[in-house]
Amino acid sequence: MAKLVFIRHGQSEWNLENLFTGWVDVNLSEQGEREAKEAGHKLKEAGIEFDQAYTSVLTRAIKTLHFALEESGQLWIPETKSWRLNERHYGALQGKNKADAAEKYGDEQVHIWRRSYDVLPPLLDANDEGSAANDRRYAELDPRIIPGGENLKVTLERVIPFWEDNIAPDLLDGKNVIVAAHGNSLRALTKYIENISDEDIMDVEMATGQPVVYELDDNLNIVSKEKL
Amino acid sequence: MAKLVFIRHGQSEWNLENLFTGWVDVNLSEQGEREAKEAGHKLKEAGIEFDQAYTSVLTRAIKTLHFALEESGQLWIPETKSWRLNERHYGALQGKNKADAAEKYGDEQVHIWRRSYDVLPPLLDANDEGSAANDRRYAELDPRIIPGGENLKVTLERVIPFWEDNIAPDLLDGKNVIVAAHGNSLRALTKYIENISDEDIMDVEMATGQPVVYELDDNLNIVSKEKL
Repeated sequence: MAKLVFIRHGQSEWNLENLFTGWVDVNLSEQGEREAKEAGHKLKEAGIEFDQAYTSVLTRAIKTLHFALEESGQLWIPETKSWRLNERHYGALQGKNKADAAEKYGDEQVHIWRRSYDVLPPLLDANDEGSAANDRRYAELDPRIIPGGENLKVTLERVIPFWEDNIAPDLLDGKNVIVAAHGNSLRALTKYIENISDEDIMDVEMATGQPVVYELDDNLNIVSKEKL
Repeated sequence: MAKLVFIRHGQSEWNLENLFTGWVDVNLSEQGEREAKEAGHKLKEAGIEFDQAYTSVLTRAIKTLHFALEESGQLWIPETKSWRLNERHYGALQGKNKADAAEKYGDEQVHIWRRSYDVLPPLLDANDEGSAANDRRYAELDPRIIPGGENLKVTLERVIPFWEDNIAPDLLDGKNVIVAAHGNSLRALTKYIENISDEDIMDVEMATGQPVVYELDDNLNIVSKEKL
């Protein structure tokens, strides 16, 4: 029976400042580092031995993975990074203060952007300074798939191919896998493997730095789920 | 023209205590962390943009890589770890104090073990507690290739296939590559690409945490070499 662990990155500097973050490459806060190390300590206590690690191309998730693996004595396991595990792209809201956005667009509109499954945020153009099109880490992507903004539905549609091509084959091979990623990329994976409805998924919260441990059978049905 | 950077891990806790280390998974010292971050700062100043990172399965090299990449804003690049980039295995000398070993075996014998190209150290048996055969990170290796002790010649013979299969193809593809590894695995690579004799290579020293930058032409001939 294979084990699958999800861990949302520890608190970031922008979580702290209440800014929309998305694909902006913000670092962990000091508390975020502590959360990641504490997660590694819990994984060690639980005696989980990983065979493969996956993370996004964003520093806060990568560092969370590294702290957690080092603390559990497993920094040496193979690691693969992918933009497909990135946070939901928050479009033109990225870098904006959440309270300022509510003042400008209205509470209800901001609530819809944050909590609806399929409404897109205001989009960034490829020519905008903050566009991922100008970031070397996305240079090998077809420009047509670099998002200007995503809802959870679009996020799920680019996360699930990574599950299909990488995570699922590992689990079917009996490997224990850790995925260090973001609130919404992990929400997308959770929706998919737990078969949660479009309505209910928006109420599922992932706590920063808390490992969620699944055991899965040979058909990738969930046998158990535990939050450490 | 592709760039290739070698970086020997920063000072480890056992460098500090003058112990033979080899495959023992010792952490960086505080000075070692500073050296690794300083290396990243130099790489950023030099403006080198990497496409691929390679390191060993030993924590001190992995952490050196991560500190250097983070400091240069490139923690997101693909990273592959391999036992083939590990330090020379020091056999039964691992964990022994260098001065104690000199007292027990004689200065000359210890000098031969440290400085000859092809004399093996006293070997560890697969049943010995410290054998790599008991370490999960080598579980997928044919037991016949797990060393009980290595000289530089044997180290080179297991490092070069990694050059041939991974590093050289990347460079031929025009990618800039960073290799964070160890005194002797980097000495093996240096011997190979600079065509240094068996006698002369033992006098080549790699400074901890100092990036060595090569530029190579389309036939992997060295065009320039610079220590940062």
